Amino acid sequence: MAETFVIAQGGGPTAVINQTVAGATLEIRKRYPKARVLGARHGVRGVRDGDFVVLSDLPEAQLRLFGGTPSAGLGSTRDKPDAAYCDLVLKGLQKADAQAFIYIGGNDTSGTQQILTDASGGSIAFVHAPKTIDNDLMENDHTPGFMSAAEFVAGAFLSVDLDFRALPGVYVAIVMGRHAGFLTAASAAWRLDEESGPHLIYVPERAFSVSRFIDDVKRTLDKHKRCVVAVSEGVQTADGTSLVESIVGPDKVERDAHGNVKLSGSDLNRAFEHALAEGLPGKRARVDALGYMPRGYVGAISKVDSQEAFDAGVHAVEAAARGGGSVALQFDGQKTVLNIVPLSSVAAKTRHMPDDFLSAEGTGLTEKGMAYLNRLVPKRFEVAKPFV
Amino acid sequence: MAETFVIAQGGGPTAVINQTVAGATLEIRKRYPKARVLGARHGVRGVRDGDFVVLSDLPEAQLRLFGGTPSAGLGSTRDKPDAAYCDLVLKGLQKADAQAFIYIGGNDTSGTQQILTDASGGSIAFVHAPKTIDNDLMENDHTPGFMSAAEFVAGAFLSVDLDFRALPGVYVAIVMGRHAGFLTAASAAWRLDEESGPHLIYVPERAFSVSRFIDDVKRTLDKHKRCVVAVSEGVQTADGTSLVESIVGPDKVERDAHGNVKLSGSDLNRAFEHALAEGLPGKRARVDALGYMPRGYVGAISKVDSQEAFDAGVHAVEAAARGGGSVALQFDGQKTVLNIVPLSSVAAKTRHMPDDFLSAEGTGLTEKGMAYLNRLVPKRFEVAKPFV
Repeated sequence: MAETFVIAQGGGPTAVINQTVAGATLEIRKRYPKARVLGARHGVRGVRDGDFVVLSDLPEAQLRLFGGTPSAGLGSTRDKPDAAYCDLVLKGLQKADAQAFIYIGGNDTSGTQQILTDASGGSIAFVHAPKTIDNDLMENDHTPGFMSAAEFVAGAFLSVDLDFRALPGVYVAIVMGRHAGFLTAASAAWRLDEESGPHLIYVPERAFSVSRFIDDVKRTLDKHKRCVVAVSEGVQTADGTSLVESIVGPDKVERDAHGNVKLSGSDLNRAFEHALAEGLPGKRARVDALGYMPRGYVGAISKVDSQEAFDAGVHAVEAAARGGGSVALQFDGQKTVLNIVPLSSVAAKTRHMPDDFLSAEGTGLTEKGMAYLNRLVPKRFEVAKPFV
Repeated sequence: MAETFVIAQGGGPTAVINQTVAGATLEIRKRYPKARVLGARHGVRGVRDGDFVVLSDLPEAQLRLFGGTPSAGLGSTRDKPDAAYCDLVLKGLQKADAQAFIYIGGNDTSGTQQILTDASGGSIAFVHAPKTIDNDLMENDHTPGFMSAAEFVAGAFLSVDLDFRALPGVYVAIVMGRHAGFLTAASAAWRLDEESGPHLIYVPERAFSVSRFIDDVKRTLDKHKRCVVAVSEGVQTADGTSLVESIVGPDKVERDAHGNVKLSGSDLNRAFEHALAEGLPGKRARVDALGYMPRGYVGAISKVDSQEAFDAGVHAVEAAARGGGSVALQFDGQKTVLNIVPLSSVAAKTRHMPDDFLSAEGTGLTEKGMAYLNRLVPKRFEVAKPFV
């Protein structure tokens, strides 16, 4: 069996991605006491360049402390390797004498592992361990990183809704999520009662209309005197254009190296500020982005998420022993169970929020949607209902 | 002695302002078992309009749960009463048969209490209980609300610095603080080592220059490959113009009802995005505002802050017994002590960061500045140093 394992982290960091590194390393040590575990710095880039940390040399206590530290402690990368890049990665693995490569990431990462599997001819076991705050991986009930991020978002909206009870107005917070609205929906997890915000939720799964948005806000203000709104950064108009692009214009919009519209700038904030200033002139309104906080805030790391991320690392070692695959967190109706599924069933696919999680208007959650959140994001704080 | 006490909350909410209500109410109940305690909704507005909650009717357990709930649960107001408004407030207090009015807030609140004292002719005891995340009250070593807000900011920067170790670039976060830089400085409280961000801090106490900012960022990138920046929303250029105004122009800038430049919109984000895009073309950069999270995030409530805010309420009752005044949190060299000072010594004044808290360049903290933060914002999480 394998004597050298390579582990790497890809894509956006999460609060618990290091747990998966710790879980895999400790499991390898248990199963193969003499095996070497190399952590590649900055994902496939480190594999390609032979830039490794020898994780198997570290004491267990240090690995466990590392596991409890948010963000990707080996470094990450946004590189999506093409065939030529994959060839270099394969050479890097061969040079390191690796029998298995465990890559922790989202659906792009699974795709990379599929390409490498096809290119290697079976000499190396390629394993994908799941990670994403977007919660958008097929075959998974939920993904490591989501629960912690969701807990931050739930706490942020509970808090800001209390703030806006004290000083009423309109509040819009933009939440990460290009294609899937799970994290934005988590804003509703800790609502105190029917009166609580977020009063409106906009996710990429439903078409966004500025005029309907303004109507929604007006109606909420009439009812509650304040309006707290959660918006996914990836909301799109009915023709499939991102909101940023539809407002800023296709020429002026910023794009990343892959041609994707940059959603993280302040253009989207301004779009909402302008829409509110025009639609509700003189009304106190604030637009913020929660930014990077959900994916790594040190004060919102879910214990269950941490344990599941660790377990995903443990299962990745079993997947390696079986020749490769993708670790998936599934729900058996009672509890979360970890299974191993083919890489191709996760690669380059996106899981969206089930349609029956969203209310008919699309701006709220159904009982089924709430039940999903209640299971994954249980309330962690007891607070009193304010007097206003 | 007084049989009816009125309590109200003013200005921006904090994570612990309800503790002061709870502390005062429970102390009144202890000292004057038959006294009535009225909580005014939305600050002086509720006093003026006779809109009260009878706090003395509530069981202790409910008051304690209320105390542990972030934001101003009685509601707050931005109203700064003039003489005519104060007259209506005074009439409201007389109508409620109030012998004392405890108003929890910042220096504006203290100013209101001073005006009311002068107008009332001594028939009512006016007390100011301190509260502000800005930490900018004279006579105070620090203010209730600051420690919790500072803890959020410290944790946010620890987390985002780990994120930017994983995926390097430039990160700028805008932190609340119009006149004082304490909360922005708190971004440095939980730095892991000399290599850690925030690498640059910009506060209102020092003049801001865009060209020097770009030079600072370039130098930091050369040294650390990433650059994490904390900026107070109130930074000003050397001529005393707010950065927003100097970039957007005095005509286009948004102002609030008091003529103050609106700092909370996305103009400041954009100013930084543009400065970075021009000064460091092509470099990955992200500009966020921490927004309202520091002042009420349910997951970052400091226990010491909670206790001190409660104690400030207790002391406010003693201040009422003495005929009025402002409760101040002072430091005796060993511990925090609560004293009562004249309203006029706090009213309409701003405490700035001591000059010797800031390094010569103004973008870092001195040992003295760090010692202050270490005392008030002790580390709460143990994390591992990343491998990148």
